[in-house]
Amino acid sequence: MAKWVYAFGGGFAEGGLADRDLIGGKGAGLAEMSALGLPVPPGFTLSTEIGRLYLASGHVFPDGLADEVDGALAAVGRIAGRRFGDARDPLLVSVRSGAAVSMPGMMDTVLNLGLNDETVEGLARVSGDRRFAFDSYRRFIQMYGHVVLGLDHGLFEEKLEDYKLARGLVLDGELAAEDWQAVSDLFKGLVIEETDAAFPQAPTAQLWGAIRAVISSWNNPRAVAYRRMNAIAGDAGTAVTVQAMVFGNLGETSATGVAFTRNPSTGEKILWGEFLPNAQGEDVVAGTRTPQDLTERARQETGSEAASLESLMPEAFAAFSAVADRLERHHRDMLDLEFTIERGRLWMLQVRPAKRTIRAALRSAVEMAGEGLISRAEAVARIEPRTLDQLLHPTIDPENGADLFARGLPASPGAASGAVVFTPDEAELARTQGRKVILVRVETSPEDVHGMHAARGILTTRGGMTSHAAVVARGMGKPCVSGAGGIRVDFKAGTMTAGGRTIRRGDTITIDGGTGQVLIGAVPLREPELSGDFATLMRWADDFRTLKIRTNVDTPADARAARSFGAEGIGLCRTEHMFFDQRRIAVVREMILAETPAARADALARLLPMQRTDFASLFEIMSGLPVTVRLLDPPLHEFLPTGDAEIEELSAAMGIPPARIRARSEALAEANPMLGHRGVRLAISFPEIVEMQIRAILEAALDVGEASGRPVELEIMVPLVASKAELDLIYQRIRAAEAQVVRLHGRAPRYELGTMIELPRAALAAGDLARSASFFSFGTNDLTQTTFGISRDDAAPFLNAYLALGLMPSDPFATLDETGVGELIRIATERGRAVRPGLKIGVCGEHGGDPASIRFFAGLDFDYVSCSPFRVPVARLAAAQAALARAGITGAGLPASAEAPAV
Amino acid sequence: MAKWVYAFGGGFAEGGLADRDLIGGKGAGLAEMSALGLPVPPGFTLSTEIGRLYLASGHVFPDGLADEVDGALAAVGRIAGRRFGDARDPLLVSVRSGAAVSMPGMMDTVLNLGLNDETVEGLARVSGDRRFAFDSYRRFIQMYGHVVLGLDHGLFEEKLEDYKLARGLVLDGELAAEDWQAVSDLFKGLVIEETDAAFPQAPTAQLWGAIRAVISSWNNPRAVAYRRMNAIAGDAGTAVTVQAMVFGNLGETSATGVAFTRNPSTGEKILWGEFLPNAQGEDVVAGTRTPQDLTERARQETGSEAASLESLMPEAFAAFSAVADRLERHHRDMLDLEFTIERGRLWMLQVRPAKRTIRAALRSAVEMAGEGLISRAEAVARIEPRTLDQLLHPTIDPENGADLFARGLPASPGAASGAVVFTPDEAELARTQGRKVILVRVETSPEDVHGMHAARGILTTRGGMTSHAAVVARGMGKPCVSGAGGIRVDFKAGTMTAGGRTIRRGDTITIDGGTGQVLIGAVPLREPELSGDFATLMRWADDFRTLKIRTNVDTPADARAARSFGAEGIGLCRTEHMFFDQRRIAVVREMILAETPAARADALARLLPMQRTDFASLFEIMSGLPVTVRLLDPPLHEFLPTGDAEIEELSAAMGIPPARIRARSEALAEANPMLGHRGVRLAISFPEIVEMQIRAILEAALDVGEASGRPVELEIMVPLVASKAELDLIYQRIRAAEAQVVRLHGRAPRYELGTMIELPRAALAAGDLARSASFFSFGTNDLTQTTFGISRDDAAPFLNAYLALGLMPSDPFATLDETGVGELIRIATERGRAVRPGLKIGVCGEHGGDPASIRFFAGLDFDYVSCSPFRVPVARLAAAQAALARAGITGAGLPASAEAPAV
Repeated sequence: MAKWVYAFGGGFAEGGLADRDLIGGKGAGLAEMSALGLPVPPGFTLSTEIGRLYLASGHVFPDGLADEVDGALAAVGRIAGRRFGDARDPLLVSVRSGAAVSMPGMMDTVLNLGLNDETVEGLARVSGDRRFAFDSYRRFIQMYGHVVLGLDHGLFEEKLEDYKLARGLVLDGELAAEDWQAVSDLFKGLVIEETDAAFPQAPTAQLWGAIRAVISSWNNPRAVAYRRMNAIAGDAGTAVTVQAMVFGNLGETSATGVAFTRNPSTGEKILWGEFLPNAQGEDVVAGTRTPQDLTERARQETGSEAASLESLMPEAFAAFSAVADRLERHHRDMLDLEFTIERGRLWMLQVRPAKRTIRAALRSAVEMAGEGLISRAEAVARIEPRTLDQLLHPTIDPENGADLFARGLPASPGAASGAVVFTPDEAELARTQGRKVILVRVETSPEDVHGMHAARGILTTRGGMTSHAAVVARGMGKPCVSGAGGIRVDFKAGTMTAGGRTIRRGDTITIDGGTGQVLIGAVPLREPELSGDFATLMRWADDFRTLKIRTNVDTPADARAARSFGAEGIGLCRTEHMFFDQRRIAVVREMILAETPAARADALARLLPMQRTDFASLFEIMSGLPVTVRLLDPPLHEFLPTGDAEIEELSAAMGIPPARIRARSEALAEANPMLGHRGVRLAISFPEIVEMQIRAILEAALDVGEASGRPVELEIMVPLVASKAELDLIYQRIRAAEAQVVRLHGRAPRYELGTMIELPRAALAAGDLARSASFFSFGTNDLTQTTFGISRDDAAPFLNAYLALGLMPSDPFATLDETGVGELIRIATERGRAVRPGLKIGVCGEHGGDPASIRFFAGLDFDYVSCSPFRVPVARLAAAQAALARAGITGAGLPASAEAPAV
Repeated sequence: MAKWVYAFGGGFAEGGLADRDLIGGKGAGLAEMSALGLPVPPGFTLSTEIGRLYLASGHVFPDGLADEVDGALAAVGRIAGRRFGDARDPLLVSVRSGAAVSMPGMMDTVLNLGLNDETVEGLARVSGDRRFAFDSYRRFIQMYGHVVLGLDHGLFEEKLEDYKLARGLVLDGELAAEDWQAVSDLFKGLVIEETDAAFPQAPTAQLWGAIRAVISSWNNPRAVAYRRMNAIAGDAGTAVTVQAMVFGNLGETSATGVAFTRNPSTGEKILWGEFLPNAQGEDVVAGTRTPQDLTERARQETGSEAASLESLMPEAFAAFSAVADRLERHHRDMLDLEFTIERGRLWMLQVRPAKRTIRAALRSAVEMAGEGLISRAEAVARIEPRTLDQLLHPTIDPENGADLFARGLPASPGAASGAVVFTPDEAELARTQGRKVILVRVETSPEDVHGMHAARGILTTRGGMTSHAAVVARGMGKPCVSGAGGIRVDFKAGTMTAGGRTIRRGDTITIDGGTGQVLIGAVPLREPELSGDFATLMRWADDFRTLKIRTNVDTPADARAARSFGAEGIGLCRTEHMFFDQRRIAVVREMILAETPAARADALARLLPMQRTDFASLFEIMSGLPVTVRLLDPPLHEFLPTGDAEIEELSAAMGIPPARIRARSEALAEANPMLGHRGVRLAISFPEIVEMQIRAILEAALDVGEASGRPVELEIMVPLVASKAELDLIYQRIRAAEAQVVRLHGRAPRYELGTMIELPRAALAAGDLARSASFFSFGTNDLTQTTFGISRDDAAPFLNAYLALGLMPSDPFATLDETGVGELIRIATERGRAVRPGLKIGVCGEHGGDPASIRFFAGLDFDYVSCSPFRVPVARLAAAQAALARAGITGAGLPASAEAPAV
């Protein structure tokens, strides 16, 4: 016969920690503590299978379950020394949910179950506290009425308020035993009024009603929403734990509390928590009384006048301290505990891994490794890589109140304050004047990049997490809030409005790109700290990983930042970003608008020294580390001005009629620029641009290599390649440009030639491409766009709906789609290596900084991933975890969430 | 030792027809004729391997070749009874190129080789014609001087003209033997002047010079360009045939001529050709004398007064007739022959398959099958499917002179005349007034479709072979010339200008979409004829094919045309095309601009009966054949007006402020609409549109099925699907709409649900998709776009360069790219069938009408291809050929070109 009920208590337990899926997190923790001989009120758990069967069968329990429950309940009674339903000395129980994955507060609980008009008298007698007994009874009726019978809480509160009003009572504490008895009667009357049935008096009927309600609460809207937000499967179902009640509200030697084995904010190894004397758990949560500190030290630090548990109940405290210590050593992790002290006796009610801040996660992991509690590998495996992002940027000090103006998407982490400006030119002017500004745009385009560089942060009212603003800001490591649709910008008036309030040009705001908040005024920020535990853990991570971490940068500032974060080279240098510099864009435009080869050559000749200088700086900073330079990629129309004013300006500067500029712009315009005249197609149409770029790259490498004595490890790659024929033609032109460098300088630096793989066809033709290319760099942004047929710029209106409807597990531009895009990558990797065994393979799309994607790339034995500078630490850690996972070491089961503890 | 030289002559030959690759087409033909015992002047062929070795080695011949040539030359002498270089009775030879694939006139030839100051006297003596001997000598010097020594023809012509002028001579015929001798001397002097070396007198030196020159002419610019245009490999090289000269210019009993075994224009079985008495081959080509008819019948038909060969030299004619007949029976094909009659004796100089018109190809194939010369399968295999296009449309009568205004791309075949209009509304107005017009646009968009329907033909000044105009016009079977970049349109003035000439609104022009010509005035047209040989051959083709041919149509007129061309169902009905109808677009716009679900529902309710009528007509016409309906695909902004005038109009009609229309348009605008909010994504965002479409489809099918007693074979498919989750959601909505139909009507028709495969991800996830979809339809247009990352709308600027540079073998939007797109199709087909063995698979992209692509689809055992109506016959034939090719029956080696014969 199937087993559905798992008992625990009295130093014994069926099941333990390993059985979370079967008996839920709560049940597993209680079973484990019970088996360890710790003081746990006896109880039993109905398995998650029962939960699933019940929901799937149309609310029917399997035959035999009732017998199992009866048996388990009798066993609980034997241990507790009381019988369920015994009118003289009743056993009361709690009925709680417990899913495999913690969903705190999302499902329902019933306490004090087993009370009725008879047993309440028994409880009064045995406890010697009639007021306690009737208070418990009315609480039970209210809770049961709400959870099981579906009545509104407010109805009960009203009755209680009416009662108090009629008698001139204000605080609950003023009600005596008789009052609570009267209230209980009123509540029972309410149940009859509302349900046309009496409040169930039979304890067994109460029990089954509660079990059914708790199981069904798996599908309440709150729980469904939580699962969707946290990507928890909807068909796992919940277990139900039925446990003997203990009471923290049985007078001054009773108490109830919660504790963490270490400080969940800082990670410091000190018992940390709070308690309430003479109270039940719900009082702590309700917040009507102020909880007191657990330890004397904490009391002194907070300057509280209320006694600590340590001083108030030294014996119980000592017992709890010992239990906490034993549990942490047993679980080898920082824990979140719940306990009750009933007339001086300690009872443990819950144990689970503690939610903690990233700082606490780092410190506890490093210190536990120091204490020998866990290995360094386990310490590394326990940190969720994404959470590192919070450490690398200034953040809003959560201690400070803030005035929320609007909310957008958390597009690029970090917080920044500054005066509002509405154009990139204003931003640039402000920088030259030493003023800090936040650039506000509807959306950004490459023409805004100089303004984005000049600003402290970027706020857009349109565009998603992968809009131009978001991608560029992340690349720059600058805070960005995107798609703040509630804000309306009036550029002419120089104002923005949201929720009826208006901010003017020059007013100060603060944006938090980690949360999407836009705040009024300058909010105090907390600066990042990259030494200490962070540095230690990253060093350990580096010892484990094999994947190299490079960075996608185009500017010296970004390159320096990336090296400080541990980048081991540049995996993507986008040469076009250099073109957008204010001083250069004019020459670039001349080059594009040139009507003769001679005019174009002239403009290119002026660009050459500029590009050479750019490359030289990057090569110097990277000092012998590999640098991958990508040839010009975007369609030329991206460089041309579009607004009338800008066209007039360019016209005046170049002495070309505006109409001709407009005509050329229109001639270059494309219906689908993403699939247009760009990448290698430009290199084929405009050989002279390739020639200039190659000269600039090779000459810079030559100079830096000779000046520094360290040869530049140079890699040149061609974007948007679809076939070997394209690659061969460009390689031929590159070799020709090299020959020119040799003619001019007598020599040329060594370099490797590779290709981007960013089109499905390139992935399929990878065997061919590998005959010519000595390395592959996967451009997963474009590859995702073409594989899915989704433009990142246009995806927002439907992609959000897709995610909400569960049609996609995650945004494919954030986390690699393994089924489609991943398969093309696998195919390309296999075919490329089959032809050229030593083929170097890396990735330079946004996915290079995404932990789940990095695990995938590591699984294919990539040589490196390349990501934006601020993602480098994330990638280092994720790469280490990928290597550890292959060796069987994971942080699973002990989630170190970034969420601050709820208490 | 390798063999490089292949001899023929005297009833013997080394090699034959099967050796075209080795000894070239010319050499193979001569060898074959010689082996058949036909009168062929003896000679030998240097293999193509020699050509390749010579060019690859830097112009060096392998050791031993000279000996082989000497031996072969001696053998020729023995058969001819003359020795090469013999001063008394010299053997003269011709040296000609001969590639495996015919490249007529592209490479060089030297005749009369072996003449020098001594042998010319011997020739004079033996021939008894001193004038002939010195005329031959001067011709040789000129030809050799040009081909081998690189001198300009003009230099020789000048000398000759000066000589004639000085002596008052006008015609060449007036020059006597002495004159030609003097001219020979002048020519030799010219050679010394220009080359600083005497004209080579040693026949062996002459021979090797000529061989080198002929081999090298493989790489002359003319030949290179020809190969590029005709997709002939550049590394095949040419063979060289050295053959004893025979002379058609040895008096009145000599002649030279060319002939076809059947009429190359009509295919009629009658010897057809022309000759010149007393002339050499080059005289026929030069066109200075009018050639005479071969047969009496032809002479009578043309009304020529010059005698026919049949009457002039009856014996030689009879001999030639017999040879021609024997050769046709031997080759089992219509042939192109060259012959010379030397003093009454017939010599055959060339045999090759005849170039012929498509009419001649059809008639000769059908008649040869009737004669039992070839099988029906071979007849079917011999017709190039593309050429059928010419038969299905009116064409410009080539007999008529025409005034060329400009030239564009041959975007959609057929010719049409009409008055020029510049807007779709003018076109529509003209139709209601019964006027024929040609719609001229810079480029077209979906808003122009009603005007395209109303016009007789479409001319655009921008856009390629796969632009909107081209694709839509082909779909409609309407003539279209696209991308006529030389024309400048002035819409305000209502004029268009090209080459300094201006055409005004209302002026009549004629366009030929088969050639890209734009002609001034109304040029007479030749109407298509689909019966007779065409019908016979198509009937035969249908017997051989297994692939079904469906059609892509949206209107009743197209559906009827497609059935008349033999379509076996509709493979793609684009429901959105129905939306563009003038009467409906307003309602569609209301639906899109609706600001409440109720307003949208109202507009949809008005669209429902319209769509139902549309579907009902198509179902009726298809009368029980399968019909595949695709749900709405294009992004909604395509339906909104863009011009101010149109917006004002819509604003007035709908009572919505223009600003709101503009705002909605802008909100819907996309950076890359091809990768945007379209296809299944629309169906997900706007369930009410799906609901309306499904109701319209099912109700129409119900009505037609019951009225006709023939149930509609209905297939519904979802566009732009990337994952099974999308498909399942839409299927669920379709089932819900079906349930609604059942509620309303008590029943619903049967239908199948399938998916388009037009994204790489869909191809990779095909196994998943096949779990839900019961058929696949490959949308190869979109699949090509995403696989290559190339937008068809934007490809022209670089795709043409790609084709010119040889970076792509062909336009991937015209002929399927088998390496990339084809592999995805293969993967999808395998995975889909692995999951669902009976999975129905078809293709509905443009490639469904391309013969090479059809061969690929047939190879994967597709169930059907679907193409535009006018491509249906092409597809039927191509499908038959694909089936025959798998059985080993091809038309290869006997190309039936559409090109008219050059003579």
